[in-house]
Amino acid sequence: MLPSGAVIGILGGGQLGRMLAMAAARLGYLTHVYEPGSAPPAGQVAARLTTAPYEDLAALAAFARGVDVVTYEFENIPASALDAIEAICPLHPNRRALEISQDRLTEKAFLTDLGLRTAPFAAVTDAGDLARALDRIGVPAILKTRRLGYDGKGQARLASAGDAEAALAAMAGAPALLEGFVAFSREISVIAARTAAGQVVAFDPGENVHREGILRRTTVPARLSEAERAEAVRLAGRILEALDYVGVMGVELFVTARGLVVNEIAPRVHNSGHWTQNGCAVDQFEQHIRAIAGWPLGDGRRHADVMMENLIGDEIGRAAAIAAEPGAALHLYGKTEARPGRKMGHVNRVRPLGGG
Amino acid sequence: MLPSGAVIGILGGGQLGRMLAMAAARLGYLTHVYEPGSAPPAGQVAARLTTAPYEDLAALAAFARGVDVVTYEFENIPASALDAIEAICPLHPNRRALEISQDRLTEKAFLTDLGLRTAPFAAVTDAGDLARALDRIGVPAILKTRRLGYDGKGQARLASAGDAEAALAAMAGAPALLEGFVAFSREISVIAARTAAGQVVAFDPGENVHREGILRRTTVPARLSEAERAEAVRLAGRILEALDYVGVMGVELFVTARGLVVNEIAPRVHNSGHWTQNGCAVDQFEQHIRAIAGWPLGDGRRHADVMMENLIGDEIGRAAAIAAEPGAALHLYGKTEARPGRKMGHVNRVRPLGGG
Repeated sequence: MLPSGAVIGILGGGQLGRMLAMAAARLGYLTHVYEPGSAPPAGQVAARLTTAPYEDLAALAAFARGVDVVTYEFENIPASALDAIEAICPLHPNRRALEISQDRLTEKAFLTDLGLRTAPFAAVTDAGDLARALDRIGVPAILKTRRLGYDGKGQARLASAGDAEAALAAMAGAPALLEGFVAFSREISVIAARTAAGQVVAFDPGENVHREGILRRTTVPARLSEAERAEAVRLAGRILEALDYVGVMGVELFVTARGLVVNEIAPRVHNSGHWTQNGCAVDQFEQHIRAIAGWPLGDGRRHADVMMENLIGDEIGRAAAIAAEPGAALHLYGKTEARPGRKMGHVNRVRPLGGG
Repeated sequence: MLPSGAVIGILGGGQLGRMLAMAAARLGYLTHVYEPGSAPPAGQVAARLTTAPYEDLAALAAFARGVDVVTYEFENIPASALDAIEAICPLHPNRRALEISQDRLTEKAFLTDLGLRTAPFAAVTDAGDLARALDRIGVPAILKTRRLGYDGKGQARLASAGDAEAALAAMAGAPALLEGFVAFSREISVIAARTAAGQVVAFDPGENVHREGILRRTTVPARLSEAERAEAVRLAGRILEALDYVGVMGVELFVTARGLVVNEIAPRVHNSGHWTQNGCAVDQFEQHIRAIAGWPLGDGRRHADVMMENLIGDEIGRAAAIAAEPGAALHLYGKTEARPGRKMGHVNRVRPLGGG
């Protein structure tokens, strides 16, 4: 277990890094945030901030020498940056989890190899691939770049085969995959954690509502049968174990008549786990810090029902009104400019367990 | 209402300042901590830290010029320091609340003038005063310096009149007051907040257990009748209103057969309010920031039962074992040296509302 006063390095200075830094502080740790952009939200609450690009290997090495463990708030970190860090300091979660989640095709192949169900998919590099994939998968479908992409970027929907040319053009030559749609009744996610010793703990699945590719709301409890709930948790555990994972992972799932289908995995704390801040004794951020610092995990039990709502762009203007609502817990990210689509904060609306 | 990105100045860099800084961050504010000691716990999570004594009026003025409002985590701040700040920047809670709580005699006089009950008391400056006070109040009694004093320091117990000389010597010439003991069944406290507009909100009273003058545990709900609960909250509201108070105050009370007796007031967030971090949507730290930054107050309702226990000195060694308990929420203060009597952290043990 890392001793009190140890330093946790965090790659990425956004709101996830910010909430990780506050959770680390609650366990007595100092944090050092590494972020290319200026004035990052996480820098406001970290003991130390390095402002440098991920291509600056000397800055990364200096960062790694000053911390006891490194983690990250997002998965699209260049391999060279990770090499520079791992030469000096432990990195959690591990490279395999990152590599799998950095590539949608690799991720889907990993999941199906585990025997889990995903949307139908096919690799697409040219018009011929796309035509064959459309033949097999049908429409509607969605063409996505294999790498990068976040909150709906780098994606093109195909309502008919006639959309193929435009969709392929939108990929700008990047390797892609075509995904079929899944007929689902609802979207849920499981936030689960694993320690190096193999302890696995999952929070109660949350039910998600997305709009324009961005998460808007997560509600716990999700409307699930006991069998679905157990299956969701079991499935997340299988993924963590297969990756020898250390830390918190977000697993997004579709609920279908034929069972659960994995949408995607994120090797980090996840927006759909923000409800845990006000519904559990140990939230997803602290759970992640516990895992990477060698603590026992919290038990994940809920002591309250919660509805989490993101405050996006100028919705932040509603913060004062929300603050006056009974049971509303605000979490703002310290961003001063409210650009459209930008996550500015969230609110957890809390009710006693099973209450009215 | 202070806009997002505004800077909140905090005098004092201990654990209360630290938890205030994290609450300010949740509302989108930056914090600047002013603390004479090196490497203060609050500095680890603040956007900025000034290390300078309270006698350095130039440093205080520079601090005040860089912030939008100033608050404090402890009440024994020199008047000259407050003058330097108030010449530049608003200070909350106000000077009157500070002056009253800095002097035990003034505080008792203020409370009795409000018609509230306190322990019997008398001013003591010399042996003649003390003899007359002992005649009137009797023994056992406790002699306390009027000013300073924290967690049992600057106090001497008198089991009989024969202890008078030693007790007076322990005051080292400082003006003092003699307090009689109050026969009480339990100690409780009310954490209440008031805004500049006069909105007052109290959290549910907590039941406290002290040992050697240091708070060990606070439990909510406290074992109180509905009438006692209502009276405790009403009484706290009267104190806040009489002081035109802005911020959070801790009011310690004795429960006696003849009603509630005020033990002392603290014009700040209070150790006995730490349970709110895991029992309410808005905790005492955020409630304080809301009040001084012009937000509406949170409603103060509990959504869970909580038992808060301080981790003092080497009790911090139990942190890992506590972390493995179901429902245990740890809050460590980032102090590396565990001296005897030093508050190193606390744990909130959370259970669903009214649960078993």
